Order: sequence, then structure tokens, then C-alpha cells
Amino acid sequence: MAEESFVGDLPVKRPREDEENGAFNATEAMETETNSSEYISSVIPGWFSEISPMWPGEAHSLKVEKILFQGKSDYQNVMVFQSSTYGKVLVLDGVIQLTERDECAYQEMITHLPLCSIVNPKKVLVIGGGDGGVLREVARHSSVEQIDICEIDKMVVDVSKEFFPEVAVGYEDPRVTLHVGDGVAFLKAVTEGTYDAVIVDSSDPIGPAQELFEKPFFESVAKALRPGGVVSTQAESIWLHMNIIEDIVANCRQIFKGSVNYAWTTVPTYPSGMIGFMLCSTEGPPVDFKHPVNPIDVDGSQRNSKPLKFYNSELHTAAFCLPSFAKKVIDSVAK
Amino acid sequence: MAEESFVGDLPVKRPREDEENGAFNATEAMETETNSSEYISSVIPGWFSEISPMWPGEAHSLKVEKILFQGKSDYQNVMVFQSSTYGKVLVLDGVIQLTERDECAYQEMITHLPLCSIVNPKKVLVIGGGDGGVLREVARHSSVEQIDICEIDKMVVDVSKEFFPEVAVGYEDPRVTLHVGDGVAFLKAVTEGTYDAVIVDSSDPIGPAQELFEKPFFESVAKALRPGGVVSTQAESIWLHMNIIEDIVANCRQIFKGSVNYAWTTVPTYPSGMIGFMLCSTEGPPVDFKHPVNPIDVDGSQRNSKPLKFYNSELHTAAFCLPSFAKKVIDSVAK
Repeated sequence: MAEESFVGDLPVKRPREDEENGAFNATEAMETETNSSEYISSVIPGWFSEISPMWPGEAHSLKVEKILFQGKSDYQNVMVFQSSTYGKVLVLDGVIQLTERDECAYQEMITHLPLCSIVNPKKVLVIGGGDGGVLREVARHSSVEQIDICEIDKMVVDVSKEFFPEVAVGYEDPRVTLHVGDGVAFLKAVTEGTYDAVIVDSSDPIGPAQELFEKPFFESVAKALRPGGVVSTQAESIWLHMNIIEDIVANCRQIFKGSVNYAWTTVPTYPSGMIGFMLCSTEGPPVDFKHPVNPIDVDGSQRNSKPLKFYNSELHTAAFCLPSFAKKVIDSVAK
Repeated sequence: MAEESFVGDLPVKRPREDEENGAFNATEAMETETNSSEYISSVIPGWFSEISPMWPGEAHSLKVEKILFQGKSDYQNVMVFQSSTYGKVLVLDGVIQLTERDECAYQEMITHLPLCSIVNPKKVLVIGGGDGGVLREVARHSSVEQIDICEIDKMVVDVSKEFFPEVAVGYEDPRVTLHVGDGVAFLKAVTEGTYDAVIVDSSDPIGPAQELFEKPFFESVAKALRPGGVVSTQAESIWLHMNIIEDIVANCRQIFKGSVNYAWTTVPTYPSGMIGFMLCSTEGPPVDFKHPVNPIDVDGSQRNSKPLKFYNSELHTAAFCLPSFAKKVIDSVAK
């Protein structure tokens, strides 16, 4: 069973006794890629450092005002802390998932890049995204009638509802149905052609999200989409993971017979300060992701929502323009 | 006089005896904004952490393989180290100026955004940019006949030539003339209307570069430019310094009577993972920065240079598309 514990003021108990010098002893840990879960959720007195074998040799650190939650679910370590300059921060297995200060960039882009690229999206499925931020963004689209979300980790949902009400507000929309369970299994059971859009808001491909980067998963997504339906998936950073991106693009080119595109956005608290997305469509009515046909930023019909902070139609188109080094690799992946 | 010292293997002498816990004792230092120069160049055993009152509450750290150079010039602390995953790194007053892995993004964008926006640039002035990377990029333009650079700190030039030959290669172009001195004074002495383009490659507005963010400096730049001439200046991050950007935009709107624009790019090792640029033109033939008229990426005439890694015409246009929260502020600055 999952164990939860609320922790008050700093200092909190550290995972390993030998981490006297804080983040900088984690050097050793970083070199042991096989056993990462032990250390990557470590908290150094006064600061949180994000250390992972996925981005060796660098670490981003945030000053911690107070640890608000620490727990271990069936799937991962979950932590929430109040940072001194980025608001509250949600951390899974030692990796920052969102901060109050910059979550708008990720949530708005991963949602509106697909939904603004098709006319009248009605049925939307979110895989992962337990914090509710993507739901909040999907709910801005008045054409949408049904929003399903399949999140594997109930603790993420509960913690978000408790500590991030402006993110988890997405759950309050009456069109939302939460399914707690495995996204891979959920998708396999979906009737063919059900959804207009699928949004895969996953963590990195080590840990519980690993399968969400593999070919069978993309095949299930394609099957669940209607002809000319769209998918948006978290697809890492061009500065750090061109090899992963190359694999994802190759898989997507084989499976999605409409269009396959890579887009990106700035997110200061993600490694390398940016994150990418794969935007693909199934065979059917063509989708030109670079030219949005459903511009939400001039849509007065958004239901009860605060204004967009980040996304706009100009930025939508710009997100598909890549630095030459990345464009070269992505364009070279055989169709 | 400037003092220089070459340092061999780690550990190096640390600036303060009490920094036993590395970056995390700098918490205290960060709260004392008045006396920053003492600690911001601190080196923690095994890692370098970038800590500054300009981005309180966060720090980016790179693992250090070897310190290659540490010196104190008349203007600032200068350090070069070999990082484990970003190549060699140049640090001024504790702030990362460039790494071999991502310098292409900054150098190419700050240079080609202005130079690709006008036809046949001939005379170009670089203020700052002592590492030579901007020179390397300017030199790609075959129309250019004269490249002047005014860098205040000779040590930056020397260190770059020694440790960053692929950046300092810019100095080898026969069109380049190096002036070691104060950019503000240099500009005041320039004959009115001399340059087609001025590129201000400065550090942050604390320390030696402070004047480069102030109105009298922009007035000198405008005077040095021909009618319809262009300037590009380092202009901080929209995530961290909207207040500074607002001031810069306000100054530029008053002084540059052609066009005034803000653009940005991703740079993983700069705070918040991005950096912005002001692109302005003087009264004269209109300049539409968003639509390059001098596309270098299809220009076969580049002299002896390696291919561009980052810049392309699509990305040029995209760089001017801003997240809504930034666009709102910048658009609201009175003309």
C-alpha cells in the first residue's frame, strides 16, 4: 500500500546518511544509473536539487521555504514544497513536474497545440496529467463534450487537489471523468476511433512512464483516434535528448499516417529550460499543425476561465520552428 | 594591475572559508544583495553553481572536470573550466557567459537577427563580445567590409583565444579591428552615421556592463548608425526580468524611430534557459525585423566557415513571437 506522510518545517530527513555535502555528493549517485530512485528525491537542507542520470553533469536547484508533502505511492516518490521564488513545486521521483510560476507554458502548449489544430474537438483523452492542469486547459474549449483522463497514480491527483488548487481546478469541470489506472491498458480497451484528440502528459521515459514512449503505445493511441484525429505527447528536449526524440519521431512516422511534427516551448524549471512535443495526426482529413484553425485566444466563449498566460496563435506557429541542428536530425528520420 | 593565475586540478582554493556545504551556504550570501562580487564566483568542490541576486532562489550547476583558468582583471573575475557535459565554460563574475555546447544559440541569434534584416551590411560594430563568437558570426556575411569590436576587458579576449579557439576564431578575419576600451566612450567618438549595424553583446546590468542598459548609451548607438541602421542588444529573460525589459523597451521606443522589437532564443545554460534581444532600427529605410531580407542560411558565399548550427530564416521569424504574458507588457510600453 502507498504510504503518505506530511512533513512540517525543514530540515527533513535525508534519504542517505552520507549526503553531507548536499547535491554535490549525488555526483557519485549520478554515476550509478541503475538505482536512481534512492537518491533523486533527496532534499538538501534549504534547497532542492534536480539530479538525474537523464541529464548528467548538470542540476537545477530551487531554494526551499517549506516541505509541504512527502509520500511514496505505489509508483513513485511524491513531494510538494514551497519554493522561495517559483511558488509551490510538485516533484515526482526527484524530477520537477510543475511550479506555480511557469506551469502555464507547458500546460497551455501541450493542450492548445493539438486542440487549436482541429475544428470542433468534442472527445478528448488525457493520459497522465494527474495534476489536472491539462484538464483545465482542455476545458477552455467550448466545443468539447467529453474529457476522459487516465492517471496511474491517485496520489498525484490527491496531492494536486490539496496543494495546487489553481491547477487541479481542471477536475471541477463537469465534462471530466477520472479513471485511475494504467494508460496503456485503458487505451487498449478504447473503442476504435473514439477520440478527436489524445494528450499524453507523461513524465520522463524512466519510471512509470516508460511504456508511453514505446511503439505499441503509439499504436493504441492511433487506434483510439478518429480519422484525422490528433495526438500531443511530451517529447523531451532537443538540447539533451535528440536520440530519444529521433526514436519517437521514427515510431510516429511509422504509425501516424497523417502528419508528424515536433514543436517546443520554453519552461525554465525543466532541464535545459525547454520541452518538446510530438504533434501527430491519423490518416483522414489533413491536419496542418503549423496553422491553427481553432484559435482559442480570440474565443470569447471560454467557460469561467482565467485568461491564457502563455499560448497565442502566433506562438503556436512559431513553436514548430526548430534550430538547425534539431531540424536536420528530425527531417532525416526516414518516413 | 590585473592578476592572473593558472590552476591545475581540483580542489581549488575557495573564496570563503565558511562555504563548507558548497552552493547551499550561498543562501545567506544571496540575501545580501549589496556585496555580491565576493561570492558569485565561488567554486564548489566538483561543481560550479551559478548564484546571483539577479535570479534569487535558483541556481544552475555544472559538474567541473578541471579548472583551466582563474584570474581577476581590472573589471571582473574571469574563470574557465572544463565541464563534464557542456564542454569548456567561460564564467565572468560567477555568471556563465558561454559553454561550448550551447554557445551557437546565442552567438548566431544576436548576430544574424540584425544582419539578416538589412540588405548588404558593410560596417558592423560589436560592443563587448570579447570572446569573439559574434565576430565569427558577423564574418559569415560576405557583404561586410569592416568589423570593429570594442571590448573593455583584454583578459576576456586573451582567455578566449587560449581556451575557446572555435569561438575566438572570429578574430582571425582580416576585416576585424579590436579596440580594447570602454564601449560607451568609443561610441561617443564615432562619426555620426558610420555603421550599418551595432551588436551589443554585454553581460548583465550589474558590473561593468551596467551603462550598456542605460538611455545615454542607446542614444550614442542611434547616432553611430546610418539611417535605417540596426542594433541588437542582449536583453535578458522574460521569465526573470520583465521589469528590466520594460525599461529597455521604453528607452528604445524613445530613441529608435524606425522599429523596436523584442526577440528571444533558448540557451540552456543561461538563467531560465532563455535570453532575449532588443532589435531596433533608426529612422530611414524601414526595417521589418520579422521578415529577413538577407537570408544567410541559403548563402553559399560564407567565407571559410563551418555550417550554422542554430540559426535559420524560419527560426528568425519565430524568435519574435512572444508568450502572451510578455507580449502584453511589451506592447503596453508607451511609444
